[in-house]
Amino acid sequence: MSEALNVALAGLGTVGGGVAKMLLEQKEILLKRCGRPIKLVAAADLNKARFDELGLPDSVSRFRNAREMAEKTDADVIIELIGGADGIAYDICLTALNRGKGFITANKAMIAHHGNELARLSEEKGVFFGYEAAVAGGIPIIKSLREGLIGNKISEIYGILNGTCNYILTVMRETGKPFDVVLAEAQKLGYAEANPSFDIDGIDTAHKTCILGALAFGLPIDLKTMSIEGIRFISDADISFAEELGFRIKLLGVGRRYENGVSLNVYPCMIPQTAEIAHVDGVFNAVITEGDFVGHSMFVGRGAGERPTASAVVADIADAAMHRGGPMLMVANKEVEPVRIVSLAEREGEYYVRFEVRDRPGVVADISRILGDENVSIASMLQRSQTVGGVVPLIMTFHKSKERSVMTALNKIEQLDSVVNKPCMLRIERL
Amino acid sequence: MSEALNVALAGLGTVGGGVAKMLLEQKEILLKRCGRPIKLVAAADLNKARFDELGLPDSVSRFRNAREMAEKTDADVIIELIGGADGIAYDICLTALNRGKGFITANKAMIAHHGNELARLSEEKGVFFGYEAAVAGGIPIIKSLREGLIGNKISEIYGILNGTCNYILTVMRETGKPFDVVLAEAQKLGYAEANPSFDIDGIDTAHKTCILGALAFGLPIDLKTMSIEGIRFISDADISFAEELGFRIKLLGVGRRYENGVSLNVYPCMIPQTAEIAHVDGVFNAVITEGDFVGHSMFVGRGAGERPTASAVVADIADAAMHRGGPMLMVANKEVEPVRIVSLAEREGEYYVRFEVRDRPGVVADISRILGDENVSIASMLQRSQTVGGVVPLIMTFHKSKERSVMTALNKIEQLDSVVNKPCMLRIERL
Repeated sequence: MSEALNVALAGLGTVGGGVAKMLLEQKEILLKRCGRPIKLVAAADLNKARFDELGLPDSVSRFRNAREMAEKTDADVIIELIGGADGIAYDICLTALNRGKGFITANKAMIAHHGNELARLSEEKGVFFGYEAAVAGGIPIIKSLREGLIGNKISEIYGILNGTCNYILTVMRETGKPFDVVLAEAQKLGYAEANPSFDIDGIDTAHKTCILGALAFGLPIDLKTMSIEGIRFISDADISFAEELGFRIKLLGVGRRYENGVSLNVYPCMIPQTAEIAHVDGVFNAVITEGDFVGHSMFVGRGAGERPTASAVVADIADAAMHRGGPMLMVANKEVEPVRIVSLAEREGEYYVRFEVRDRPGVVADISRILGDENVSIASMLQRSQTVGGVVPLIMTFHKSKERSVMTALNKIEQLDSVVNKPCMLRIERL
Repeated sequence: MSEALNVALAGLGTVGGGVAKMLLEQKEILLKRCGRPIKLVAAADLNKARFDELGLPDSVSRFRNAREMAEKTDADVIIELIGGADGIAYDICLTALNRGKGFITANKAMIAHHGNELARLSEEKGVFFGYEAAVAGGIPIIKSLREGLIGNKISEIYGILNGTCNYILTVMRETGKPFDVVLAEAQKLGYAEANPSFDIDGIDTAHKTCILGALAFGLPIDLKTMSIEGIRFISDADISFAEELGFRIKLLGVGRRYENGVSLNVYPCMIPQTAEIAHVDGVFNAVITEGDFVGHSMFVGRGAGERPTASAVVADIADAAMHRGGPMLMVANKEVEPVRIVSLAEREGEYYVRFEVRDRPGVVADISRILGDENVSIASMLQRSQTVGGVVPLIMTFHKSKERSVMTALNKIEQLDSVVNKPCMLRIERL
């Protein structure tokens, strides 16, 4: 029998609890597959009751203070499942790496904010750094990018990376209910947080997208270069117009390599109903990649939750146990070179816009003229006669246009007397 | 600069050529990502012209005889891309392992026939054994099962694993053309071999399925325990009845864990048009897994071809370069325990059957009586009035029934005077 890999677990919340359960329940298969025992030697949580609730054996040292555990434990690997970009999670991480211990986390916020520094430090210390659970829960996408597709130049990567948003958009489509109602229901069901901003404003998707971008394109991790839009502004009208036009609305993280740089952004978009990712519904996540040798690939699985996320953490533990590693962000930190960021303003693509206009003559003419002046050409138009207080939705899609021109036109159109509210614009992606 | 990983390439055909090109074209990114150069030091092919065609530099030792190369090369890893379960491929493999060299192959036939022995030998010698390219081409499914989902007990795994069959079934559906015509066209286009049996009789799918079964269920590799059906007997009538009934026909490798054992087989089946795998068309492959922690996962990508397969081989090379390994079949050979095989006769499920019957009174009554006697209950029935020489197709689907009873009934029905030919039976899988 080989020596055990000793692990210490900081945080026994949903995911931490799942990892503890998995290490206990799957002990035998992990031993057979890893060729050595995985032994939980320490755990930390503020809630004293959790240790017994999870049935942790007496051999597990119990800590209230996770920082103290990180400083004292003689475990080989410290697993951080507390969360938060800074504070205790980051402290534990630095302590683990500086003590030469392996480190595993599901903390996308921390990696999105400190990933470059953590890559440098973990490489300098020569320790294992695993974060499979940080992106797309149960989908082994970090491993697939870092190892499975290692020989490829990735030209495109996009994905549905937030189960809360995907659940809300799916239910809006299936029930016709408005955003606020579906959000409230999702909160009741535990699919959305009490403070849902992190999910529905696209921040969580952005954290994951910048990690994928680093792996796919060799970018340094930098949230500040990204445009981040959430789904708050999507109305039930947009959802039903999307259906009518043959589209579905999905919140995507989208990265593309161009000749003059790389774009990496988060926005809800209209995708054809025939796109394979259009059928990834509810709490499922999906990532699609285009590699120069491998071609088109898709990975689908549960994006969050106790058990799928634990599955990803345990895969990292097994890698640590079996000495499978590599640079945290695929290439050694010192090899990462700045890449020009192509902004969304430089995008050329199709667009969907919902205007709210007063039902009076000349509106369409005015709007069309402004679009024409900016060289934005209308592909289709839908108008409904039902007015709400004299206001009707006017839907237009544009042929491939420059986003800069579209935005200029929309700003001008917004000033028209006959136009009420800011137009709702969604990019169309022909995936 | 770290020392190079030296590799020797046996076979410069489609895939071997792709690997050579990839090592040359992606030299820089492989160096950056692996942290050491990958150096092709030797190559073997019967066709002398291939070395120059591929632009191999003079530093690559050229061999006509791959066995000789395997015996003489001082490469760290030998890559076998010749194919065939035995003969030269197997000789090279044994030579490589016995010489303590790493070994990489895309050869599913060899693993399906000698996998247990090769696992034992590679573990005994402590060498790297990579075969990512053997299953589902560009999809990193071996890595995902062995590493990404390592903590899970897999209860179900199934997949579209043969691009030729999937292409033929897709074109039959899209064009309404019969099997023979589509096969001939596929042969012209290079999507099917001159001797297509290996693909269309399900043998290739079986090779891949038994490898997946070994990883998912810890089975020893044993083709003889599998039931293998191909797609030759699928008629254009079946394809169009499938559409009418809300199904698609796909050739699947299907593995399931039951309380009393594991089933692992290859057969074409009817799957609902709403199943996600129903939309994996043409030359694409897909693998779906159910794990007890991770839940439902799907992996989609190109299943064959020069570049996707090369991508998988190069991923193995990178693993070898970065010392990422593990037991070839997930658990050490000595840990593999026999598992009871649940045969298809024990299956309980739904069925589709197309009878060809003489258009005369009493036929349906006779068939229904025999089915009733065997406790097989009819779920739906379709009859067309168009006769061809007095013969009409009669389509039935059965509610969940025992396959043993279905087969008994079909054998009796076949004896009826009014029944022409053997009934065409397809399993319905509610995936």
